[in-house]
Amino acid sequence: MKQEKPLILVTNDDGILAPGIRALISVMETIGEVLVVAPDKPQSAMGHAITINSTLYLDKISGENDPIAEYSCSGTPVDCVKLAVNEILKRKPDLCVSGVNHGSNSSINVIYSGTMSAAVEAGIEGIPAIGFSLLDYDWNADFEPIKSFIKRITLETLENKLPKGIVLNVNFPKLKENEIKGIKICRQAKAYYAQKFDKRQTPFGKDYYWLTGKFVNEDKGEDTDEWALENGYISVVPVQFDLTAHHAIQQLNTWNLNE
Amino acid sequence: MKQEKPLILVTNDDGILAPGIRALISVMETIGEVLVVAPDKPQSAMGHAITINSTLYLDKISGENDPIAEYSCSGTPVDCVKLAVNEILKRKPDLCVSGVNHGSNSSINVIYSGTMSAAVEAGIEGIPAIGFSLLDYDWNADFEPIKSFIKRITLETLENKLPKGIVLNVNFPKLKENEIKGIKICRQAKAYYAQKFDKRQTPFGKDYYWLTGKFVNEDKGEDTDEWALENGYISVVPVQFDLTAHHAIQQLNTWNLNE
Repeated sequence: MKQEKPLILVTNDDGILAPGIRALISVMETIGEVLVVAPDKPQSAMGHAITINSTLYLDKISGENDPIAEYSCSGTPVDCVKLAVNEILKRKPDLCVSGVNHGSNSSINVIYSGTMSAAVEAGIEGIPAIGFSLLDYDWNADFEPIKSFIKRITLETLENKLPKGIVLNVNFPKLKENEIKGIKICRQAKAYYAQKFDKRQTPFGKDYYWLTGKFVNEDKGEDTDEWALENGYISVVPVQFDLTAHHAIQQLNTWNLNE
Repeated sequence: MKQEKPLILVTNDDGILAPGIRALISVMETIGEVLVVAPDKPQSAMGHAITINSTLYLDKISGENDPIAEYSCSGTPVDCVKLAVNEILKRKPDLCVSGVNHGSNSSINVIYSGTMSAAVEAGIEGIPAIGFSLLDYDWNADFEPIKSFIKRITLETLENKLPKGIVLNVNFPKLKENEIKGIKICRQAKAYYAQKFDKRQTPFGKDYYWLTGKFVNEDKGEDTDEWALENGYISVVPVQFDLTAHHAIQQLNTWNLNE
């Protein structure tokens, strides 16, 4: 009996032309039937933004005889997922993968990341999802060393099923394949950015700012994604979109809110 | 001995001219010293977007003798918080309040919300923070009925301190003051949007889309924010930015990721 290939939606936030998504597509086509819907331009740091006050365009960029259908979208990564599921597929894919991001989405970066927002959006819609990121911001980053790991993580996800309400945030250290020590399930390190604005003046004398900042990790836990990455491991963090701090509810109930 | 007034940063995502932020400012000036830094245009549904690939402008719009300093910012709500803390105040305020949003940020809306992202950004930076939203999308919504509740919640937050790593997501039902039954600490309802795209054609024959959708709540729990709001209560959800699904780590460790 022929087993049906899984239908896999591929997206990212660096744009449909980025080498990272090309690497991801090349792995996914060995696993399943692939549809690509990705932003027509870089959309990094877009968080979970969606386009509600302007129009969205969707352009088919693959040819009739190409093995994989590809669409570029004028919107955010989250828009891409919504359009793919509702307008192109008209059904849920078996998996959504996002990335491979050029740069880290570990620790607090998960909150700002368009790559992870696409995965989270898929999760909200009940689609198993994984975001992949490589700790190398270079446009010409080498994705070859991580391809076998991407394949293994994807196959395990398809086989084991993800717990409900959870997507995976996978980050790869910038190492050669044989230098990577393995894959670790981690928690998100408690870190933040010490922001610094680079204040400049326009040629016309008006002040403007560039946002810059230094990543500060004071979380010394050896179960964090940052620890794993610094020590040569691939980090896998299960990410949830129920943001409720359930453990705090009891404490808040002691406040005098209803005097 | 004179007690120092708390320093309160006010922001939003509907833009600095929105009636919702005006209502919030009017309450906050009865409590503390106020600084306003808000987007110069509506930034709804921007999620946790930040501006890294373009410049940011900050314009002081209050006069020298105005009691409250107000700045409009060309960026997202998160940019506003970062600029306020790092460039204007050069220290952490005692509280950051965001809103009052014109429309709901309950349940899954928290993920898409610029209002809540500003509050979450403050939380990441170690500043106690509250996002306020009214279930009325009308620009001319009536904020009078909720002012006394905003004040009470703010004073309780300043007095009791928030647990670390948590900000508050407060939503108000669209009711008269005497119809509001009270304030309930809740969890985020597990809901989603059933998306529908309104497909149209430009005058030049090209397809484009508007994102629309219907909010679907299949969570029947009576401890959710949706239940509270539907039953005449103000909902208060403690929101965390550690997105780790800690309860899933053990299960993921049974996968064969390191064969």
